Amino acid sequence: MGRLKQKVKINVDLGEGYGNFKCGPDDELIPLIDHANIACGFHAGDPLIMQETVRACKNNNIAIGAHPGLPDIQGFGRREIKMSPEELTAMVRYQVGALKGFLDAENVPLHHVKPHGVLYGMMYRDVETCRAVYAGVPAGTRVFGLAGTYHEQVAKELGLPFTAELYGDVKYNKDRTLVIDRKKKAWKPEETQKHIRNQVENSSVTSVTGEEVELPIGDHEVSLCCHSDSPGAIHIVKAAREIVDDFNASV
Amino acid sequence: MGRLKQKVKINVDLGEGYGNFKCGPDDELIPLIDHANIACGFHAGDPLIMQETVRACKNNNIAIGAHPGLPDIQGFGRREIKMSPEELTAMVRYQVGALKGFLDAENVPLHHVKPHGVLYGMMYRDVETCRAVYAGVPAGTRVFGLAGTYHEQVAKELGLPFTAELYGDVKYNKDRTLVIDRKKKAWKPEETQKHIRNQVENSSVTSVTGEEVELPIGDHEVSLCCHSDSPGAIHIVKAAREIVDDFNASV
Amino acid sequence: MGRLKQKVKINVDLGEGYGNFKCGPDDELIPLIDHANIACGFHAGDPLIMQETVRACKNNNIAIGAHPGLPDIQGFGRREIKMSPEELTAMVRYQVGALKGFLDAENVPLHHVKPHGVLYGMMYRDVETCRAVYAGVPAGTRVFGLAGTYHEQVAKELGLPFTAELYGDVKYNKDRTLVIDRKKKAWKPEETQKHIRNQVENSSVTSVTGEEVELPIGDHEVSLCCHSDSPGAIHIVKAAREIVDDFNASV
Amino acid sequence: MGRLKQKVKINVDLGEGYGNFKCGPDDELIPLIDHANIACGFHAGDPLIMQETVRACKNNNIAIGAHPGLPDIQGFGRREIKMSPEELTAMVRYQVGALKGFLDAENVPLHHVKPHGVLYGMMYRDVETCRAVYAGVPAGTRVFGLAGTYHEQVAKELGLPFTAELYGDVKYNKDRTLVIDRKKKAWKPEETQKHIRNQVENSSVTSVTGEEVELPIGDHEVSLCCHSDSPGAIHIVKAAREIVDDFNASV
Repeated sequence: MGRLKQKVKINVDLGEGYGNFKCGPDDELIPLIDHANIACGFHAGDPLIMQETVRACKNNNIAIGAHPGLPDIQGFGRREIKMSPEELTAMVRYQVGALKGFLDAENVPLHHVKPHGVLYGMMYRDVETCRAVYAGVPAGTRVFGLAGTYHEQVAKELGLPFTAELYGDVKYNKDRTLVIDRKKKAWKPEETQKHIRNQVENSSVTSVTGEEVELPIGDHEVSLCCHSDSPGAIHIVKAAREIVDDFNASV
Repeated sequence: MGRLKQKVKINVDLGEGYGNFKCGPDDELIPLIDHANIACGFHAGDPLIMQETVRACKNNNIAIGAHPGLPDIQGFGRREIKMSPEELTAMVRYQVGALKGFLDAENVPLHHVKPHGVLYGMMYRDVETCRAVYAGVPAGTRVFGLAGTYHEQVAKELGLPFTAELYGDVKYNKDRTLVIDRKKKAWKPEETQKHIRNQVENSSVTSVTGEEVELPIGDHEVSLCCHSDSPGAIHIVKAAREIVDDFNASV
Repeated sequence: MGRLKQKVKINVDLGEGYGNFKCGPDDELIPLIDHANIACGFHAGDPLIMQETVRACKNNNIAIGAHPGLPDIQGFGRREIKMSPEELTAMVRYQVGALKGFLDAENVPLHHVKPHGVLYGMMYRDVETCRAVYAGVPAGTRVFGLAGTYHEQVAKELGLPFTAELYGDVKYNKDRTLVIDRKKKAWKPEETQKHIRNQVENSSVTSVTGEEVELPIGDHEVSLCCHSDSPGAIHIVKAAREIVDDFNASV
Repeated sequence: MGRLKQKVKINVDLGEGYGNFKCGPDDELIPLIDHANIACGFHAGDPLIMQETVRACKNNNIAIGAHPGLPDIQGFGRREIKMSPEELTAMVRYQVGALKGFLDAENVPLHHVKPHGVLYGMMYRDVETCRAVYAGVPAGTRVFGLAGTYHEQVAKELGLPFTAELYGDVKYNKDRTLVIDRKKKAWKPEETQKHIRNQVENSSVTSVTGEEVELPIGDHEVSLCCHSDSPGAIHIVKAAREIVDDFNASV
């Protein structure tokens, strides 16, 4: 397990409110991050929120990605739905296209696509799901995913540039997959910081069952994900920013 | 009132099913028409239907437009909803972008945008609604609307190319606006044919209150709209095709 | 495998349209059946359709049951969604309560509850799902399900009267579970008739893999289910009515 | 304008979250109020939230009412939708029935029905809308509304007991109708307190245009409404509780 040779960036899911319902403190998070994953209306987000979030990211020079999810606002894209491969592909095309509508209006390029919630998990557990979702990504568009899983394998198959993700506020299983809860639970700040530092400095993570697990990041670009709906999101992202800036200065 | 100098084309709303629910006989209509207005998921249509409809249109060399509607599948976009101008603009960008996702995947250009149902009517009755909706149309994209109403005026303001529509299966009020029903009623074939012929040959229409009204088509491109959910849709469109082909041969 | 000793009734899912979208030929089916399962708005049905369907059933003296489904109109309740037991219970209470709103307004009792589509299947495959769904059924209300599965077992546990179902237009696996398709496929009339007669007269069915399988109906009340969205639904139900009337006359 | 002779109670809309989205601080508000208006899933609320809110109210001996709204979660029931009278009636029956499903399961009676948001306003502006909505209320069930408007008139026509509402955190027009914003704006505490005291002690209110307006409360039961999504909701409701308790002690 070794020190990363690449600089690390930070990504956060944004625009995950719906109508009058607010989700995270987006305005405060935007200045702290490099990459935004903008919800596309299926698990959260609505056209007005998307438009405003795109503008806020543009004003802060944040690279913008699409964050397509399962069609389930009530479940926030965190309840598994069995859809056919054709449905998955079409659903991703729809959502990415919708976001591009706002990007085009603002003359901003689409930087990447990162699937949301349980869909992200279904993709690293099932290669066909992964293929169906990535088939909906515009040709040549970068995808964010977990190195060493179908995410990376299928991106390679389809010629999609790949960014390996680290997770600042999500725990890992010993097989390097993520422990996803329907609602995020609070962490102690020291715990988050150690979790982040361990990933950034050692490409390594302590799984929920105690094993020290190596993350096979390789030469990929790296982006650390934090969640805007985590309790204490701002503190987590600020801590992540410091650790990452520190680390990047030394690379 | 004079004979049109332009050739007339035919447009139909397509892809207006939802999930297992079918709407019109799209497969039979596609070979008969020139322009398709594809529903974008808000009043009807879902990603899979959109994908399949785009492919079917492409295979038949039909020019494809976006058909954005109010967010109301239960009401089929035919119940007025009071939305803010920002919401309207964002909603149109979202839907047009979503359709472009499928067009881009198939390497087909977006030909036009035509708002659906009561939104179309709200636009010719209220200039601010019209401006808000057209503000969501990609720059320079053709719009379909009613000549002599805010549709035409605002298209000109915003520099959007304009196609004047005739209506094969919808009646007109004496102010040249349309009589929109939540569910379409059946017409006698002779009645439809006379209604179409009168518009194509005389730029004129008999209103529901009996007045003969001139349609101020001018030099615009012209497209005759028929609806896939009208009772007897196939017969109406076949009749329209014959009348229009006949007319076009003589232009 | 023996001849049933009970009379057999017929149930059909009704009110499975949505807004302008029609599903089955409900008006023609109602005079042919004994029990209606009325969709409650989650997989199909909307308040207006429910109200009209309740009235039509009342006018024809059809016993009315609630037909709750997964929250997925786009998937017609035929895409599996992973919900927590609490969500399942609450979702069933909500839907059954909504239908009761219309029954109360018309002074008609709730006769039974029959879960829809893939939810029905999830229940016979997983006892916890079955318990969670039946926990949402009002105390003492009859449930319709498959004899010899968790449906029957859990109904007994919870003291809910149980009606054993036969399936007129659905095929069986050799373990006596149903073969559910997202969209129904057409059958030959002779095939349907043989399928129904075999169940009614012999408590037996030929599985899709060819085995002759006994249906453990026991002493339960029996109702034969046909689907309003099957191709040729009216012919199937008419044939079922004849076979069943014939059989009942002989009991 | 005179001092009220009745005691005043307090009602708050509760359960107005959706899935993972939280709305008001319900847990803190429940101990402070007398009447809960529980959202029924159309403008906010989902089955699980409804179930939990009903239980929390039951545990605190709060009288529970249904709070049906227009079918528009994105607009939080605050965007006008033109629905037919039949649709309105059916929609109310559906929502009230759904809530009754949870009340029945908990053996708690339905105390009242209070329509939500813009629907409430559409009812006092248009008598047919009011009749259509109240036609969906179970016979003999109490309704909450504005005295001196169609709310009161139609309740009387239909034999529905009527509770006159005061509004703690909403301003009035000079015709005694309410000023409804899509999102609530913050008030100064002194301003709210004065607004409440003036209504409770003088049946009077200062309109947004400055006129002192009498509220024709008459002999009706009285309930003061505060909103859980108002900025500073807890402080407003605490202040209201004190003013009301003070006043009630003197009646």
